[in-house]
Amino acid sequence: MRVGGLSEEQLLARILPRLPAGTDTLLGPGDDAAVVRAPDGRFVVSTDVLVEGRHFVRAWSSGADVGWRAAMQNLADVAAMGARPTSLTVSLVLPDDVEVDWVLGVADGLAQACGPHGVGVVGGDLSGGPAIVAAVTVHGDLAGRAPVRRSGARPGDVVVHSGLLGHSAAGLALLRAHGPTAAGPPVPDADFVRAFRRPDPPLTDGPAAADAGATAMMDVSDGLLKDLGRIARASGVSVDLSSRDLGPAVDELDVVAQACEASALGWVLTGGEDHGLVATFPPGAAYPAGFRRIGVIGPAPDRSGEQAEGTVPDGGTRVTLDGEPPAVGGSGWDHFGSS
Amino acid sequence: MRVGGLSEEQLLARILPRLPAGTDTLLGPGDDAAVVRAPDGRFVVSTDVLVEGRHFVRAWSSGADVGWRAAMQNLADVAAMGARPTSLTVSLVLPDDVEVDWVLGVADGLAQACGPHGVGVVGGDLSGGPAIVAAVTVHGDLAGRAPVRRSGARPGDVVVHSGLLGHSAAGLALLRAHGPTAAGPPVPDADFVRAFRRPDPPLTDGPAAADAGATAMMDVSDGLLKDLGRIARASGVSVDLSSRDLGPAVDELDVVAQACEASALGWVLTGGEDHGLVATFPPGAAYPAGFRRIGVIGPAPDRSGEQAEGTVPDGGTRVTLDGEPPAVGGSGWDHFGSS
Repeated sequence: MRVGGLSEEQLLARILPRLPAGTDTLLGPGDDAAVVRAPDGRFVVSTDVLVEGRHFVRAWSSGADVGWRAAMQNLADVAAMGARPTSLTVSLVLPDDVEVDWVLGVADGLAQACGPHGVGVVGGDLSGGPAIVAAVTVHGDLAGRAPVRRSGARPGDVVVHSGLLGHSAAGLALLRAHGPTAAGPPVPDADFVRAFRRPDPPLTDGPAAADAGATAMMDVSDGLLKDLGRIARASGVSVDLSSRDLGPAVDELDVVAQACEASALGWVLTGGEDHGLVATFPPGAAYPAGFRRIGVIGPAPDRSGEQAEGTVPDGGTRVTLDGEPPAVGGSGWDHFGSS
Repeated sequence: MRVGGLSEEQLLARILPRLPAGTDTLLGPGDDAAVVRAPDGRFVVSTDVLVEGRHFVRAWSSGADVGWRAAMQNLADVAAMGARPTSLTVSLVLPDDVEVDWVLGVADGLAQACGPHGVGVVGGDLSGGPAIVAAVTVHGDLAGRAPVRRSGARPGDVVVHSGLLGHSAAGLALLRAHGPTAAGPPVPDADFVRAFRRPDPPLTDGPAAADAGATAMMDVSDGLLKDLGRIARASGVSVDLSSRDLGPAVDELDVVAQACEASALGWVLTGGEDHGLVATFPPGAAYPAGFRRIGVIGPAPDRSGEQAEGTVPDGGTRVTLDGEPPAVGGSGWDHFGSS
């Protein structure tokens, strides 16, 4: 059955029972608005939109994979502020020919990502349209913590990371190499493909890092170089990554990278969508066990090499590897540009 | 200039300065998440998605009109719970050929709708895609009030409405009659067209109704019959509208309806998108001055005429006019169905 054969209320009646209530939900879907607890007296909020053909391909990701990713990349944004996610809303735009089962899969993926964390899916909207779009907004509670921003890194701080680096890029490369169809050869290295389809960032490390005194934090959605470039610019500093510190992450990808004729270091530095957490701590601070050191914060670079205001900031002059500009093509990808 | 020529960061740099900060915003856009005050210790949240060709047509609405509507229909959802809106997020999907000025217009329309109410635009996301989509999520504060749900109406309650009824439908009919192009004849009855392009619901009447003891409330987005049918089903009651009470609303539309060969009563009963507030109050309650009586709540109807579970509920057997099923075609429109 395809969604074009159902009304909005009929489709909602099938979706709603699959969604998790959440531990902070006071009034769930079904009225003009939901009501969610904000015990802190503040809430954090972030939003992301996924478009078919840009952020996912139906042949490579099930509905449940898309629902999982849509939730998880938003949950990671909340964790990156040092907050615990509490709730999210989802709007779906669906062409008439989408299978109802695919949409129910999205609901299941949302539930699988949110349920274990006590996050409720508290509202949503459905519309027809020419392409699948999923727009997710997520909320979280800081429990009295100051939000950890991008702008607090200081020279001498250590740069640490928790989660995977480059695994999602490796999984995508494997899918590309092995073709999109289920009829193709079995995809090897299922862990990498799973990392691409179902990123599972260390959400509780966000509040833990905040409690431990992180000076800056963000989730790595567009690649380490690009996202560290954002921290560097917001903080008015530079970042020097250590190839020795990144060695274990590179080693994990080496066999797959050779099979794909790709660069494992390139995946580690520019592969996005793993949504691990990168944070900075004052020198000597005891950062939580999930984080591994990957570099150090330096002073603001000589601005003479920077691009003019308003051009795409690539972080190239702000982020170095062993003191030199990284010799990898690109520096992360632009969700929006034509590239 | 078209958006395809800009990166996401370049376009954001043009949009962000146009957005209102809001009186409850502690940390605005630019980090992984925003931080908003929730003085009540709870927040209300609702989300809506608008798709070009379904919810708006570029020829009939400017970018600013679309931004205004996207904000206002969400702000109305918050008001309908008895809350004061505080903040919203906006995700935009934009084909490459959309003019940058059109997108900046959306930002201006959001600002014009939100700014006077102290509502901040605190986050967003941009993506390319095959059609324009705007997904808005809105938040509000209940200031200690119980949320006013759809389920609290009781037999004997009076049904009241604040705002416009059928004006947006009249405006749309006028645009259809006079053609979409700027080169066409000047559009008459500018107030109706403005009601279509820029609905301006009585947002402060929502909290006022909650304070005055409203037993149920919602905003009229899909037409009076359809939305009152929702209150009737959620509350387990019926609604009888009074043609005498609706007379002034019908009279306002009479001349335009005749010119368009349409039914003024039909517009009042089934025209959606005015986003006025319909509420119920115990008999004898002093409801706020902005509301006008339009009917009364009765007991649950004989269920024998109801449609089977899972079919589109049209409210027809739940909502009557002067005791009879209303003799108007349809009962509101479905954003999602193929109709």
